[in-house]
Amino acid sequence: MATIADIAVSGAINLLTAFIFLLAFAILRLQPFNDRVYFPKWYLKGLRSSPSRSGAFVRRVVNLDFRSYIRFLNWMPEALNMPEPELIDHAGLDSAVYLRIYLMGLKIFVPITFLAWAILVPVNYTNNALEAVKMVANVTASDIDKLSISNIPLKSQRFWTHIVMAYAFTFWTCYVLLREYEKVASMRLQFLSSERRRPDQFTVLVRNVPPDPDESVSELVEHFFLVNHPDHYLTQQVVCNANKLASLVKYKKKMKNWLDYYHLKFSRNQSQKPQMKTGFLGLWGGKVDAIDHHISVIEKLSKEIEEERKRVLKDPKSIMPAAFVSFKTRWGAAVCAQTQQSRNPTLWLTEWAPEPRDVYWQNLAIPYVALTVRRLIIGVAFFFLTFFFMIPIASVQALASIEGIEKRAPFLKSVIEIKFIKSVIQGFLPGIALKLFLIFLPTILMIMSKFEGFISLSSLERRSATRYYIFLIINVFLGSILTGAAFEQLNSFIKQSANEIPKTIGVAVPMKATFFITYIMVDGWAGIAGEVLMLKPLVLYHLKNFFLVKTEKDREEAMNPGSLGFHTGEPRIQLYFLLGLVYSTVTPVLLPFIIIFFAFAFVVFRHQIINVYNQQYESGAAFWPDVHGRVITALVISQLALMGLMSTKEAAQSTPFLIALPVLTIWFHRFCNGRHKSAFVKYPLQVMFFCMTNSGS
Amino acid sequence: MATIADIAVSGAINLLTAFIFLLAFAILRLQPFNDRVYFPKWYLKGLRSSPSRSGAFVRRVVNLDFRSYIRFLNWMPEALNMPEPELIDHAGLDSAVYLRIYLMGLKIFVPITFLAWAILVPVNYTNNALEAVKMVANVTASDIDKLSISNIPLKSQRFWTHIVMAYAFTFWTCYVLLREYEKVASMRLQFLSSERRRPDQFTVLVRNVPPDPDESVSELVEHFFLVNHPDHYLTQQVVCNANKLASLVKYKKKMKNWLDYYHLKFSRNQSQKPQMKTGFLGLWGGKVDAIDHHISVIEKLSKEIEEERKRVLKDPKSIMPAAFVSFKTRWGAAVCAQTQQSRNPTLWLTEWAPEPRDVYWQNLAIPYVALTVRRLIIGVAFFFLTFFFMIPIASVQALASIEGIEKRAPFLKSVIEIKFIKSVIQGFLPGIALKLFLIFLPTILMIMSKFEGFISLSSLERRSATRYYIFLIINVFLGSILTGAAFEQLNSFIKQSANEIPKTIGVAVPMKATFFITYIMVDGWAGIAGEVLMLKPLVLYHLKNFFLVKTEKDREEAMNPGSLGFHTGEPRIQLYFLLGLVYSTVTPVLLPFIIIFFAFAFVVFRHQIINVYNQQYESGAAFWPDVHGRVITALVISQLALMGLMSTKEAAQSTPFLIALPVLTIWFHRFCNGRHKSAFVKYPLQVMFFCMTNSGS
Repeated sequence: MATIADIAVSGAINLLTAFIFLLAFAILRLQPFNDRVYFPKWYLKGLRSSPSRSGAFVRRVVNLDFRSYIRFLNWMPEALNMPEPELIDHAGLDSAVYLRIYLMGLKIFVPITFLAWAILVPVNYTNNALEAVKMVANVTASDIDKLSISNIPLKSQRFWTHIVMAYAFTFWTCYVLLREYEKVASMRLQFLSSERRRPDQFTVLVRNVPPDPDESVSELVEHFFLVNHPDHYLTQQVVCNANKLASLVKYKKKMKNWLDYYHLKFSRNQSQKPQMKTGFLGLWGGKVDAIDHHISVIEKLSKEIEEERKRVLKDPKSIMPAAFVSFKTRWGAAVCAQTQQSRNPTLWLTEWAPEPRDVYWQNLAIPYVALTVRRLIIGVAFFFLTFFFMIPIASVQALASIEGIEKRAPFLKSVIEIKFIKSVIQGFLPGIALKLFLIFLPTILMIMSKFEGFISLSSLERRSATRYYIFLIINVFLGSILTGAAFEQLNSFIKQSANEIPKTIGVAVPMKATFFITYIMVDGWAGIAGEVLMLKPLVLYHLKNFFLVKTEKDREEAMNPGSLGFHTGEPRIQLYFLLGLVYSTVTPVLLPFIIIFFAFAFVVFRHQIINVYNQQYESGAAFWPDVHGRVITALVISQLALMGLMSTKEAAQSTPFLIALPVLTIWFHRFCNGRHKSAFVKYPLQVMFFCMTNSGS
Repeated sequence: MATIADIAVSGAINLLTAFIFLLAFAILRLQPFNDRVYFPKWYLKGLRSSPSRSGAFVRRVVNLDFRSYIRFLNWMPEALNMPEPELIDHAGLDSAVYLRIYLMGLKIFVPITFLAWAILVPVNYTNNALEAVKMVANVTASDIDKLSISNIPLKSQRFWTHIVMAYAFTFWTCYVLLREYEKVASMRLQFLSSERRRPDQFTVLVRNVPPDPDESVSELVEHFFLVNHPDHYLTQQVVCNANKLASLVKYKKKMKNWLDYYHLKFSRNQSQKPQMKTGFLGLWGGKVDAIDHHISVIEKLSKEIEEERKRVLKDPKSIMPAAFVSFKTRWGAAVCAQTQQSRNPTLWLTEWAPEPRDVYWQNLAIPYVALTVRRLIIGVAFFFLTFFFMIPIASVQALASIEGIEKRAPFLKSVIEIKFIKSVIQGFLPGIALKLFLIFLPTILMIMSKFEGFISLSSLERRSATRYYIFLIINVFLGSILTGAAFEQLNSFIKQSANEIPKTIGVAVPMKATFFITYIMVDGWAGIAGEVLMLKPLVLYHLKNFFLVKTEKDREEAMNPGSLGFHTGEPRIQLYFLLGLVYSTVTPVLLPFIIIFFAFAFVVFRHQIINVYNQQYESGAAFWPDVHGRVITALVISQLALMGLMSTKEAAQSTPFLIALPVLTIWFHRFCNGRHKSAFVKYPLQVMFFCMTNSGS
């Protein structure tokens, strides 16, 4: 077990790493040639343009003003300065509420930490159970363990303190959760009602339009809604499958960019008209005037596009059984989205149309039966992915070993036997296989969600986040606490009795405290500092800028601000909530590390959201019920682990008092959902009227 | 273990009992003086009146036409003759669909029985595992066990047959379930749309109206709906707490009945005006003319009622924060009932108003927080009721023992020591305590549901039925299979590993086959025959008729047809589904007994519904999703039990093939609910329009 000195060393290393990252960031962000990497959001908003062309070339690339380097941590107060309403305007409600998750972490854990250090640490420290054990069994106990629950002897009356604290922590967490739920719900309704008249607020997405032999989909939809919503129906737009059209449009855009490039070339050097070859990649073929050639190609494309557009609208095969139906009033749309239209509840499914940016077009036309079958398949697949993912990786690792390669590809034998390559293969490849899998995991989960048939990007990300969270709990949290792969654990859990499982977990929890402290420092401190440095986008941007960028438009596109990535980011935050809650009563030493993570990540992500990220869509914080539910899950896991731990401490009279906690917590969760969840699912008619009067309809 | 001979004896006894009951019924129902007991439904419908006053008194009391006794089973074809649409007209959709549960039992189990007897019984019988065991261990195996899975030796390849059969039975059950769900859903929609314009179809119940300092509830509701549903709002009716008014009205009704009685008395004997005493119970006080006295009392009451009515409508304290809001069109009501009204989803809760008969008035005004707290309390209470109900009963039993009574009431000692009384106490009282609890259990569950705050009788009954079903599974099914009280089982289950539980159940299942066969014969055959005889209402009616009946109206009220009692009847049917499905693969011998139960009960209840029961309310078969869900539960339990049994038979290669079954079954359940459940919760707008055009609105 690690001593405090070990932790201190590890902490120093990680702090140093984080500091180096921050320093590098502070220097790099001040260089004008990195401007588009570190401030793309402002470019996209049109509030910032490329460094002025006047002045020396050097000054356009490197910042020579040394005063600006002195205040290299200035970005932190800057990031905190923008008030929340302005932030919502600037980056959308999704981002602003995402930041509130970190803030909620601080709100929950700062008071808990103070209480735990004021009460639990002294109670734990003034015992000598570990000393006694050390005497007898010659076990080495670290100083950190002296501050934890492990230091309390069996059957001690002091366990009452931990139980009272468990209640206090639970009530405090629930209180913060409730307040946040209320706040976010009201922010959401405020946001929806104050938004400008957006088309999707008057529009309902209709899916599973039944086929009709006599009418086209478009006519059918029109007639259906004219009959069922006569007073409010305005118009409809059928969804078409226009893949060919889309590729033509893309090609035209590319050609236009080339045309811009040649125009630019010509304007710089008017003496010579730019020429090009018509053959493959411009390597051979007859030479023609590049500008004329592109103009003629673009004209031809425009005609083709027009024809294709007409064909798509007429061809019944390319029309999908889905439509966007617009209403005259938000009220009409709200009524249509929230009511059942047809006798058969799987036909004429209506729901609020997602934002145009948010629609995932490929899934609009999946019929009900296919949808449920897909859900079943993905459910089974995810189960195997979670519990058996180690099996294919282990086999890849076996393949990638020296013996594996020699057996399968004997001709490589001489190469492999070189000492350097051998050590690379032995030391590196097995790790790479696992790392690669973990990097691709969110993508795999996203593909699974897409296959499942969700129709908006936001719901896809929410579902992927849920799956990722389950994966993290099982394979990172439980996987670190208990040894052995997930499927081995599953096997042992099935064979274990129901009340043994919390015990197994509870006993292992305090022993892994130092491991998780190191984990928080590596992943939570250095990792977040790496986030702000944005090495990958930085390198990619400069590579693109060097090799591909021809026009100003290209440079615009080379800049890849990325987005928050709810489906990977949020489950990772939730892991910290889980760790904090589980260790709050057991090893309070871990709590300050969690607080530093939340505070640091809050500042970093606030900066990123203000300056970098550009959200793909705006769901109006529809993810909050998930966030809430996961904190509740963490709370229940922490309570069960504490119960398991207590029951091994032979604190028989005090343990039963913990049983009420999970019951109350789950009840609280249901209470909150009943109270606030519908604000995230339905839109109340009252608000709709409020909108109408506000937007002057 | 019972042999076939034992079963035959038990079967004969029960058949004889059932036959005696049926004979008694056949004789009693033909007597005119029992007419109101056996045909109250027709009286209530006004299609039958008391036996004509002409003719001899004897003929009005006893049926002397001997020809009618010969055809004493005639009521059976009569009960089956009425076609279903007519039955719906006659007794309502609830009753007609309730009968379909029995019919569904037949549809599921008749083909399963044929298949099981054609394939499983020969496969089981042509083994000699039991013979071998008998040789070695001197265990007595019954003939019934020779037909069951117990007769197949360990590791036999014949277990494949059982697995294939389990799949076949599951698919068949699911197919029947799906067809029935479809059928019932369409019957429900048909029923709702063909009903006469009923006020509740235009009315929405609004609860949790927020308090407002400036407006009364009535004004508030009116303004709110005028703003939010301007085109459709018609009128509203606030709910008042009018307990005093109700008691006044009841008293007036009683007085009117007395007035009728004295009028009748006077008309029979015109010579003497009936007189009465005004004091307590008419035993003393001044003599007055009875008719005049009652007329004056009724007049006084009418005035009081009028004043009280005015007071209630004005007094803000007696007005509850709930209202019935009526709309001009069904469409408007459908929209209002299915949408969220207010920003705060716990205020202005709207839902379809239950039928006036169906409303449970006491619960209309419970606020949201109280509701969730009540739900938590009842959840915990039900858990303890289910698992620990044996504890109070055991203590009562201890009290009711000889020693207990002698200790607590020594003065009774001499009485108790009498041999007869002693044997009664010892043999009878402990059983009585348990029996009394089981008799009162549905009432206790109903009280729990009422406390939980449901607002209609139908939902109260549905919730009680769910709880009763859980109780039956745990205490009757598992309680019979495993020995020991429920809380001991709970304790052992918690301490057992997850994969041991199905094994424990699976192994015990075949051993209890004979017990359940006897159970089916006693409870399912003789019990149902007792149902048709209606001994309790018969005795009560004649007692009332003898002692209390004064006027024709009193006789009307003495007739107590009762109603189906969904909350006790349905869970008991479900127990037979459970037994049938569990034993279908294990001991197919049990299946014919189940079939006889379903067929016999179908005929009996069809007769009762046509001639006796008078439903309190009409929910339009809203209970079907529950019925469906419980058959699915039974299916999953049967699959798990089979898995457990198989794994002890060391049929290692074949058992894993069963794992897919519960997954598929649960998926099927979700599929069905997605497809059909909303027909039982929401009302589609399309149907609303259909209604409007049909009813000429």
